[in-house]
Amino acid sequence: MKTALAFDIGGTKIYNTIIDETGKIISEIEKFSTPKTLDEIKQLLKTQIAKYEHQVDVIAIATAGAVNNANTGVLGSTGNLVEGYSSIDFQSLSSKKVFLENDANSAAWAEYKIGASKGTTVSVLLTLGTGVGGGIIINDKLLKGKSGAAGEMHFKMYSDKRRKCTCGSWDCFEIYASGTALKLDAEEALNDKNVTTYDVINGVKNNEQKMLDILTKWQNDIITGIKGLVNLFDPDCVVLSGSMAQFVDLKQVEKEVNSDIVTTPTSVRIATAGNYSGMIGAALLALAD
Amino acid sequence: MKTALAFDIGGTKIYNTIIDETGKIISEIEKFSTPKTLDEIKQLLKTQIAKYEHQVDVIAIATAGAVNNANTGVLGSTGNLVEGYSSIDFQSLSSKKVFLENDANSAAWAEYKIGASKGTTVSVLLTLGTGVGGGIIINDKLLKGKSGAAGEMHFKMYSDKRRKCTCGSWDCFEIYASGTALKLDAEEALNDKNVTTYDVINGVKNNEQKMLDILTKWQNDIITGIKGLVNLFDPDCVVLSGSMAQFVDLKQVEKEVNSDIVTTPTSVRIATAGNYSGMIGAALLALAD
Repeated sequence: MKTALAFDIGGTKIYNTIIDETGKIISEIEKFSTPKTLDEIKQLLKTQIAKYEHQVDVIAIATAGAVNNANTGVLGSTGNLVEGYSSIDFQSLSSKKVFLENDANSAAWAEYKIGASKGTTVSVLLTLGTGVGGGIIINDKLLKGKSGAAGEMHFKMYSDKRRKCTCGSWDCFEIYASGTALKLDAEEALNDKNVTTYDVINGVKNNEQKMLDILTKWQNDIITGIKGLVNLFDPDCVVLSGSMAQFVDLKQVEKEVNSDIVTTPTSVRIATAGNYSGMIGAALLALAD
Repeated sequence: MKTALAFDIGGTKIYNTIIDETGKIISEIEKFSTPKTLDEIKQLLKTQIAKYEHQVDVIAIATAGAVNNANTGVLGSTGNLVEGYSSIDFQSLSSKKVFLENDANSAAWAEYKIGASKGTTVSVLLTLGTGVGGGIIINDKLLKGKSGAAGEMHFKMYSDKRRKCTCGSWDCFEIYASGTALKLDAEEALNDKNVTTYDVINGVKNNEQKMLDILTKWQNDIITGIKGLVNLFDPDCVVLSGSMAQFVDLKQVEKEVNSDIVTTPTSVRIATAGNYSGMIGAALLALAD
């Protein structure tokens, strides 16, 4: 059976493991803090690739940032990664073929192949974490757009400039639906700069009305965003993934979305491909490429 | 050369003509007021089809409302058309094959085949008229979704319920970007229920500051919506079509969109396939089917 050495490169952590063509993780998962300089990142990847490449057929990298349509590199600058990251010649790091895909796109592919959106024609994946990622699959293909950057969840939630997104623009879905957004919602509601996402979650567990209201407001913004996506893509399902997805009331979201769209009803589901769906999706894409 | 008898069925008018496989209109365009009852609509279509079907290879219908993936009928209810419209068995009206597509999807296809988006990989068409329609083409295919209803421009412009859309939901792009929206913008700005879209356009022509401000606000909402679409689809171009498109400052829209997106720059263009692009697109689709 063919295998891939898979990486997940994020702003804070880098993971690697070996994955087979069924999407099964077949080696230990190694974890590193993302180095602060470009050279150190390259060196880390080089070392890990040198250690394992003889055992595998391909190198598969799920990465932060938009990946080009040739799946060889990253487009432009990526907020969470060091300057110059897009200049890396990933293929030069290995004698085996190196294949890249955006981390949210990779996660969407894993859900589609072995997870929550298996068997669907059109699916939208949202990764709700510190930020928000998106991956859209239409007729057995990832939506990539002209350059590879499609699926960015930076559509606007307000047209009158209220909250600045981490991308530098105003009022993107990301800055209303992420963990960061929940903290901002709490800051605004409580007029307290020091409140944390954890405070909100903890308050919700203790049934504190203020915190319940903050969570509801955050969830309502997620519902607003999903309604728009459903009217645009008419998907079989919307899959919620990432560390913040567990705080969403799926049944409630599905009910509210389906009561207020112009397309036919959709299904809202939690991701099932696990915490390493980015690496799994990248490996499955790389092995099928 | 193959030809289609093409119809455009809208809420107020029904058109028909004959179109060849190059997209050329080769007969007179006939125009009718849309009848008020289902039976009269069916009778009108039957009469026109009986008159011309012997001359053509296929019947192509561009229609208001979402069209199913089999291109045989309309899904659910359609605001602008009589109740029961979706129950029409269009194929029963002709001995030739009858092919349907949504009017905005048809217009998008015409632009893609013979108009402003020719040669692109990903394009988004917006028809700005009394309402707003949308048609998205990705890799030589219309985005249809699981049921055929994709491409609806009912993503939200505000998450806090300000303006009710004609679809019954709140704050859809349509109700901020249409001709109806421009009238509502004027009503709000001038606190006058009787102001018309024409008053605004006329005032703009006479350089009246108030009216210029109203048009700018309307255009800014269109820009906000396009930014979201560009981040989601990463299109080669966004094509503006419909009677209201002429009032948009294309260069300004393109400049503002490209200065505030996370994807690579796009091009904003005016439609060039003409007033009958719906019929042309439906004919080209039907003849290729």
